[in-house]
Amino acid sequence: MSDLGIVKAESFVFAEKPDRLKLDSGEFFGPITVSYETYGKLSPGRDNAILLLHALSGDHHAAGRYSLEDPKPGWWDNFVGLGKGLDTEKYYVICSNFLGGCMGTTGPSSINPQTQKPYALSFPSITISDMVRVEKALLEHLGIHKLRAVIGGSLGGMQALEWTLLYPETVRSTIVIAATSRMSTQAIAFDAVGRNAIISDPGWQNGNYYGTAGPTRGLAIARMVGHITYLSSASMRRKFGRALLERSDQRQFYDDEFEVESYLSYQGRSFVERFDANSYLYITKAMDYYDIAKRFGGLNKAFRNVRAKFLLVSFTSDWLFPPYQSMEIVKALMSNDKEVSYCNVESDYGHDAFLLEVESLARLVRGFLDHV
Amino acid sequence: MSDLGIVKAESFVFAEKPDRLKLDSGEFFGPITVSYETYGKLSPGRDNAILLLHALSGDHHAAGRYSLEDPKPGWWDNFVGLGKGLDTEKYYVICSNFLGGCMGTTGPSSINPQTQKPYALSFPSITISDMVRVEKALLEHLGIHKLRAVIGGSLGGMQALEWTLLYPETVRSTIVIAATSRMSTQAIAFDAVGRNAIISDPGWQNGNYYGTAGPTRGLAIARMVGHITYLSSASMRRKFGRALLERSDQRQFYDDEFEVESYLSYQGRSFVERFDANSYLYITKAMDYYDIAKRFGGLNKAFRNVRAKFLLVSFTSDWLFPPYQSMEIVKALMSNDKEVSYCNVESDYGHDAFLLEVESLARLVRGFLDHV
Repeated sequence: MSDLGIVKAESFVFAEKPDRLKLDSGEFFGPITVSYETYGKLSPGRDNAILLLHALSGDHHAAGRYSLEDPKPGWWDNFVGLGKGLDTEKYYVICSNFLGGCMGTTGPSSINPQTQKPYALSFPSITISDMVRVEKALLEHLGIHKLRAVIGGSLGGMQALEWTLLYPETVRSTIVIAATSRMSTQAIAFDAVGRNAIISDPGWQNGNYYGTAGPTRGLAIARMVGHITYLSSASMRRKFGRALLERSDQRQFYDDEFEVESYLSYQGRSFVERFDANSYLYITKAMDYYDIAKRFGGLNKAFRNVRAKFLLVSFTSDWLFPPYQSMEIVKALMSNDKEVSYCNVESDYGHDAFLLEVESLARLVRGFLDHV
Repeated sequence: MSDLGIVKAESFVFAEKPDRLKLDSGEFFGPITVSYETYGKLSPGRDNAILLLHALSGDHHAAGRYSLEDPKPGWWDNFVGLGKGLDTEKYYVICSNFLGGCMGTTGPSSINPQTQKPYALSFPSITISDMVRVEKALLEHLGIHKLRAVIGGSLGGMQALEWTLLYPETVRSTIVIAATSRMSTQAIAFDAVGRNAIISDPGWQNGNYYGTAGPTRGLAIARMVGHITYLSSASMRRKFGRALLERSDQRQFYDDEFEVESYLSYQGRSFVERFDANSYLYITKAMDYYDIAKRFGGLNKAFRNVRAKFLLVSFTSDWLFPPYQSMEIVKALMSNDKEVSYCNVESDYGHDAFLLEVESLARLVRGFLDHV
């Protein structure tokens, strides 16, 4: 049993006419539903809140279970709870689902109230800053004006970084794990392959596939590519090696024969059941376009006015968001005389290490939070 | 103008009934057409022949041009010719197209003389050893019983390695560039993504797509994935950075917007015009299955009876066929007291370095050939 017991997802609606949210694209958009969960108790002084942001395929269900029978706790249950990395005895943890996804917060698969149909491609282009604006609205709704910390890994870490830029007064500290101020050309290239696989699937139907099977093959292939980039070559070798599946007379020569093949196929298939292909397009584009240096005319300039204390964590074998990208941020912060701690954790789990190196991460995060 | 002037592709047919070729699968297969080209002159003593083997998407047209108007020379024209890496003044170079491809040597897109239809999936499963058996038949046809050297990069290097195992008496020396004795789990995983993209394309039609458009989208995606693995992250950054295409009002948010995206799309599209999807399935499976250590019960045992002198070359930034894989071969050869030279060439071009680091490679190869 998770020590957080039974948790419940909650939601809140804002940006209704005439108070629609102005997006980076210039478009005014709303209404927006935000799905979120909270763990722990808000202190009377309202000064122990931590905002937790998730990665591409995550959601607001970070910890606890939805019922006694729930077979699986939230995605970071080993990190969020009593005495854990984010100690819910001390902190009030809010995990918010981001704009553009498909897990409850408004996204392309949501119903447009004006047409009573899913937005599909009429959903506006969004940025990581837009995601953060929506998260700020949630905090205001909860009556929280200061964050002890904002924390996230991967895309969650990119949002945590963005929080320090958009709302320097709100954020006392930031924990940016396995993230970047801008994606590498190679990472963009992998995203491009995934998007191509989706939009070239006839099931995609120019985005209007709701109510049909949709681009199941394309989305599965996008996920397979993604999954390879989340692991390191060494961790794949350790996990699967060159092991073959048991022989089967039904199998054709072109079928999965190595265990790693059937593992990837499984990852692809199961992703299709829980993820929306249009969300994949919108979110990966938001990630690819994120570029702090470009926006501010250099990383050094970008961090001039941040006020948060920073903890950055990278992993030695992460080749999707490689350590050098964290170091660039650290250098820019230091050249602005900002308070920054950095650890490049020795791990051969690749990008996925941020979900797997829980012990190392918990020590780093607890130590950091004790002093902010 | 290529210094080799006008060259001509040639072909030869063998393995006709009743002399069909016995494949590793146990199947007897034939007839087999082999496409090849030769450069330079065979010495009266027939002792200056070098067999050159190409990579996955290459062919037998390694050097020279087909006509005065031919806009492009063969794929390794800067390496094969007078005074070049393979000096055609000294050597008689034979470049053979491998079994299972789609460039002239018999493969799944070839017409099965028994049915007068393309083999498609009735083409037998093939191995890298089978490719080498076909190449041996070509040499016999040409009356060549000793090779000064066999040389290849990537899949060509895997064949060059296999030559030393299957025909130790024929091979005086072997030059194995950016190759491996078995692919990594990660490399197999990338191949699996490519194959999945092909077979999940409705245009694939269980392999019977000849005469129709075929799995154009799936094959393009397979090529895009492959292309990323041929480059290094650093070379992609240098080549494209995060540069954007010029703005276009026609473009949708999900379209290619980064230069690297449109480059990959172009690579995908142009590959479809020249490559057969079923060949892609057969050849990548042959590569994935290749595993010398498994076949012989260890690399050390595998090389016990080889007689060739070896030159192995890897490239520091090659993450598809990483240097450690070449070093494993070198160690196994040394533990058998075989003559082996090895160079890990400093290059940030990734796997593609074997086509780009021509100067370094030419120096190494010329020096090596002078002493064998």
